[in-house]
Amino acid sequence: MNNLDDNVKELISTCPKSIKSCSYETLDKLALNLRQKIINTVSQTGGHLASNLGSIELTIALHRVFNSPKDKIIWDVGHQAYAHKLLTGRWERFHTLRQKGGVCGYPHRDESEHDKFNVGHSSTSISATLGMALARDLNGDEYQVIGVIGDGAITAGMAFEAMNMMGYTKTHAIIILNENGISISPNVGAFGAYTNRLTNKIVYSPVFNEVRKDIHYLLDNLKDEKMLDIVKDLRLKALSVLSDEIFFETLGFAYLGPIDGHNIKAIENALEEAKNMKGPIIVHVKTIKGKGFGPAEKNPTKYHGASPFNLETGEFIKVGPSPPVYQKVFGESLVELCRENKEIVGITAAMAPGTSLDLLQEAYPHRFFDVGIAEQNAVTMAAGMACEGKIPVVAIYSTFLQRAFDQVIHDVCLQNLHVVFAMDRGGLVGDDGPTHHGTFDLSFLRLMPNLILMAPKDENELRHMLKTAVEYKGPIAIRYPRGAGTGVELEEMKTLEIGKGEIVKEVKNPDAVLIAVGRMVDNSIQAAEILEKDGKKIKVINARFIKPLDKNLIINAMNECDNVFTVEENNLPCGFGSAVLELLEENVLIEKGKTITRIGIPDEFVEWGTIPELFDITGLSPEKIAERVKQKLA
Amino acid sequence: MNNLDDNVKELISTCPKSIKSCSYETLDKLALNLRQKIINTVSQTGGHLASNLGSIELTIALHRVFNSPKDKIIWDVGHQAYAHKLLTGRWERFHTLRQKGGVCGYPHRDESEHDKFNVGHSSTSISATLGMALARDLNGDEYQVIGVIGDGAITAGMAFEAMNMMGYTKTHAIIILNENGISISPNVGAFGAYTNRLTNKIVYSPVFNEVRKDIHYLLDNLKDEKMLDIVKDLRLKALSVLSDEIFFETLGFAYLGPIDGHNIKAIENALEEAKNMKGPIIVHVKTIKGKGFGPAEKNPTKYHGASPFNLETGEFIKVGPSPPVYQKVFGESLVELCRENKEIVGITAAMAPGTSLDLLQEAYPHRFFDVGIAEQNAVTMAAGMACEGKIPVVAIYSTFLQRAFDQVIHDVCLQNLHVVFAMDRGGLVGDDGPTHHGTFDLSFLRLMPNLILMAPKDENELRHMLKTAVEYKGPIAIRYPRGAGTGVELEEMKTLEIGKGEIVKEVKNPDAVLIAVGRMVDNSIQAAEILEKDGKKIKVINARFIKPLDKNLIINAMNECDNVFTVEENNLPCGFGSAVLELLEENVLIEKGKTITRIGIPDEFVEWGTIPELFDITGLSPEKIAERVKQKLA
Repeated sequence: MNNLDDNVKELISTCPKSIKSCSYETLDKLALNLRQKIINTVSQTGGHLASNLGSIELTIALHRVFNSPKDKIIWDVGHQAYAHKLLTGRWERFHTLRQKGGVCGYPHRDESEHDKFNVGHSSTSISATLGMALARDLNGDEYQVIGVIGDGAITAGMAFEAMNMMGYTKTHAIIILNENGISISPNVGAFGAYTNRLTNKIVYSPVFNEVRKDIHYLLDNLKDEKMLDIVKDLRLKALSVLSDEIFFETLGFAYLGPIDGHNIKAIENALEEAKNMKGPIIVHVKTIKGKGFGPAEKNPTKYHGASPFNLETGEFIKVGPSPPVYQKVFGESLVELCRENKEIVGITAAMAPGTSLDLLQEAYPHRFFDVGIAEQNAVTMAAGMACEGKIPVVAIYSTFLQRAFDQVIHDVCLQNLHVVFAMDRGGLVGDDGPTHHGTFDLSFLRLMPNLILMAPKDENELRHMLKTAVEYKGPIAIRYPRGAGTGVELEEMKTLEIGKGEIVKEVKNPDAVLIAVGRMVDNSIQAAEILEKDGKKIKVINARFIKPLDKNLIINAMNECDNVFTVEENNLPCGFGSAVLELLEENVLIEKGKTITRIGIPDEFVEWGTIPELFDITGLSPEKIAERVKQKLA
Repeated sequence: MNNLDDNVKELISTCPKSIKSCSYETLDKLALNLRQKIINTVSQTGGHLASNLGSIELTIALHRVFNSPKDKIIWDVGHQAYAHKLLTGRWERFHTLRQKGGVCGYPHRDESEHDKFNVGHSSTSISATLGMALARDLNGDEYQVIGVIGDGAITAGMAFEAMNMMGYTKTHAIIILNENGISISPNVGAFGAYTNRLTNKIVYSPVFNEVRKDIHYLLDNLKDEKMLDIVKDLRLKALSVLSDEIFFETLGFAYLGPIDGHNIKAIENALEEAKNMKGPIIVHVKTIKGKGFGPAEKNPTKYHGASPFNLETGEFIKVGPSPPVYQKVFGESLVELCRENKEIVGITAAMAPGTSLDLLQEAYPHRFFDVGIAEQNAVTMAAGMACEGKIPVVAIYSTFLQRAFDQVIHDVCLQNLHVVFAMDRGGLVGDDGPTHHGTFDLSFLRLMPNLILMAPKDENELRHMLKTAVEYKGPIAIRYPRGAGTGVELEEMKTLEIGKGEIVKEVKNPDAVLIAVGRMVDNSIQAAEILEKDGKKIKVINARFIKPLDKNLIINAMNECDNVFTVEENNLPCGFGSAVLELLEENVLIEKGKTITRIGIPDEFVEWGTIPELFDITGLSPEKIAERVKQKLA
């Protein structure tokens, strides 16, 4: 099916303009072709599959009713924008999706004038839409601004903040609520349940039921025709108002829907109506995540972010045997610890399968809490639980914990509460790119008083750190990478001494000492091996703790050798290397002519690519580290 | 009225237990005494007046119905907890309010077992309540958890996240929505308008109006008594459901109210009812901010955070002539710039009078946007406006910008958008204490790629920096302190060169060079004068830019003198001094035996006190800086 129908081929090359005058028959063919293109491409490159398959008809309707780029379409999170990319000039190079230098996995302003706002983190679309609409009003311009947000993303606080403000300003903007009942994992939250209720027309309000009873009594007993008509009208309106509109009306929105999100004409009609209304409008569309690809429809969570798969069976392609991923080791170790200590609970924010906290959910469902996309609540709720003697382990991706920066300082560290942060996907994440790299966390956590910050060199050490963290009595964070560990044998968990690093490669009279953090310990050992071939003697230290530093170990290393290097998978400003510089300053070591060279990610955002590619670009591959040390020793 | 009635005196010394058995007559006296105590104290010490006066009856009712500390009362923001403090053992030392070593202005776990959660930042109470309630359920304990939140604070996203989760978990907890129509400045947002509507029973929904019309037709025309009764019942319920309950029911809450928040008995009845219900309950209480003190009732915004005032007139006591505050200079300069450049807009998050953005509101109301307590939305909305050619100046207190940390990285810096951050109250703020000091901002902003970060040495430089910021094309932040400037003459605004500092005190062959940031420039000049009396020659540099640093200026200083000091009003980890260390490392200057000594706030949270007291404690007073330099030069 790589052969496009001729008319579809023509259509795509002239999109989005040409799409407006098509027949619905052609549009159906277009939808089919888009679906196949996405399935084929993602089966090879990996990427977000299920949400992209769910929003194809919606995308077509949007480009028919609106004039992009003059009208601005803002995709929330952006994991549903593939069809939009294919319809706006990126069909030919779509096979480079998420590859270094290729098409970005998310909307990206630098890539196309049709991508109006960079995304990756959830729930920003309503704020961005609001800002653009207000700017348009101020400028006296006339165009439409349309935000597309899922029912998972809308549960985040910032979406509510923006709706609240939008309703107040009364500016004209269209928010499409794309409901599929799934964020990354199935939605939680009363509001999620509410949007489900909207569609199913099941209303639980007891008062509502009484109203319904009253109405039914009247219907059964009234004789007068006119009165009967009035009551029927009343019934219709009361039902509709009670079940659908009030929530959004409360926030100042007009409400249209729910609409079948796979019926292009139905969506078009609603969008045309919304376009001609005034003020903020919610268009509620219902779609099926994974639509058109059986395995993804059956298990949309599995195919949310997919690795390459077999087109026929949908099975993910195994790339030879690989060591267990950090995530799995974390999840299993946590369950093990929970068995021994009944105070431990797990909290995540719509990342249960991603963090493997679903293993805890299976083993101890009552001690598992998924707050939905709501990191702020996750952290402060954990603080509340810690006040009452629980030991909350908060498992959140590093880049998403940025959302709860204030809560970690203000609600956890300031009160010195025992909350454990399991910061998953710390460091470079690969093909998701700059919105998802977790390369600021060593910096933004290190600045917080009272916090202990660790990073394991391998999955075995992750286990020890987790045990250490649940036994320590205060705020403590572990930062570990996405994906495969080193394959080291897993030992029984043991407690590590706070603030103690270890020498992982000892040599006498070293030419250089590398002090590395997390995954960079392994890269540094490899770099040392490369340098040994040149006759250089290299000592390697695993820092283990970013805060507090192992002062003795580092100062001893400085005394032993003039050339010390720090190696970290974190942006350089404020990072681990800076902590070591601070240590040297505090201990008057700088005066002795000791030098330090910080190796880490330069002060810029890193694009997408494979991890080896990104290590190479950022200077963190073993070869690049070796080269850097060599230059310095020359 | 400092003489307490004897029975009230007795009561207070045995509170909160004894309060349960009082007559309402005694309670009224108690309320009067509490009110006077708060007015008298705040008239001397300054503090939060209006919200504390509004919540006295509510506090009494809470302590009658519930058993603190077993039952847990969580105060949102905490600026309404004075009565709670007075009723729980802090009457005698209440005159030390907000003074160094005295009673904290906010609930503080270290201060009393009745203070269950530290607060200061808004909107954390529902999350904390939820966490405690869930922990209680897991522990099989039986106690009540009660969160008290204002209608300003409830508009923040994290409050919504927590309500959403609480409705879903169905745990039993009571949230008291204290509505007074005011956050710091009057509330904005559709939701705020909604809660107002609740109380006033005015409903704007057009469908609702039609339903009402139908009902009225039936009432006018029906003859049958039974039917008439049914329709009357219907009317009551439809009206109630439509106007009050649905919003909270949508989120899974039962709703009680609205209740007169100054009627102790009425509140008690509602709380008793709530106590005996199951699941999450909203008790909606309506209070008058400033209740019982005429000037504060008339102008609650003015008396939100009050300085000492005249008890009779309410006039704030002037402490001699003082230079204009940074805030006013900022507000006036912004209006001046807006006059010349029509693209500039101002955005704040419920801090219009505090930041003086109300001056813009007056001058150009259409270019002023107050998003309410919703920093996340403020920042991403600004990003949206910047996409469309506006120049948003986002004025937010440093400590509250922590709430939008992710949005500054992800929505502004990553897209390299021209958004100006006016970070008010950077550095130590004084009596508000650790929840409000803005001493992390140099660190958490410095780590962001693309961002320019400045701090003015005085209010005149603030003007130049503001002009520089609106003309620069990218993310740029200015950080300046709370309160009085240096009194320097204000010049015409001019553009500064990005990344250029200045020598503010030049000497030949200096014994030491102090490189200072912001308000520390002045302290460093004073320190230099102290040191000169000891015959030391001290050069002082105003860094102006934290990012990018003025490399030449700093490197030249290092070449000229071995003893360089950095001085900053920021926590040391990751701060300005660390940036200078990074610069030395990058420029191989460390090897040359150059030293640097970082002077700043130690890696801990700083308590409350006057600014001179806090400068002394943290080592930032001119005397302490001089001492530190002297030690090093000895």
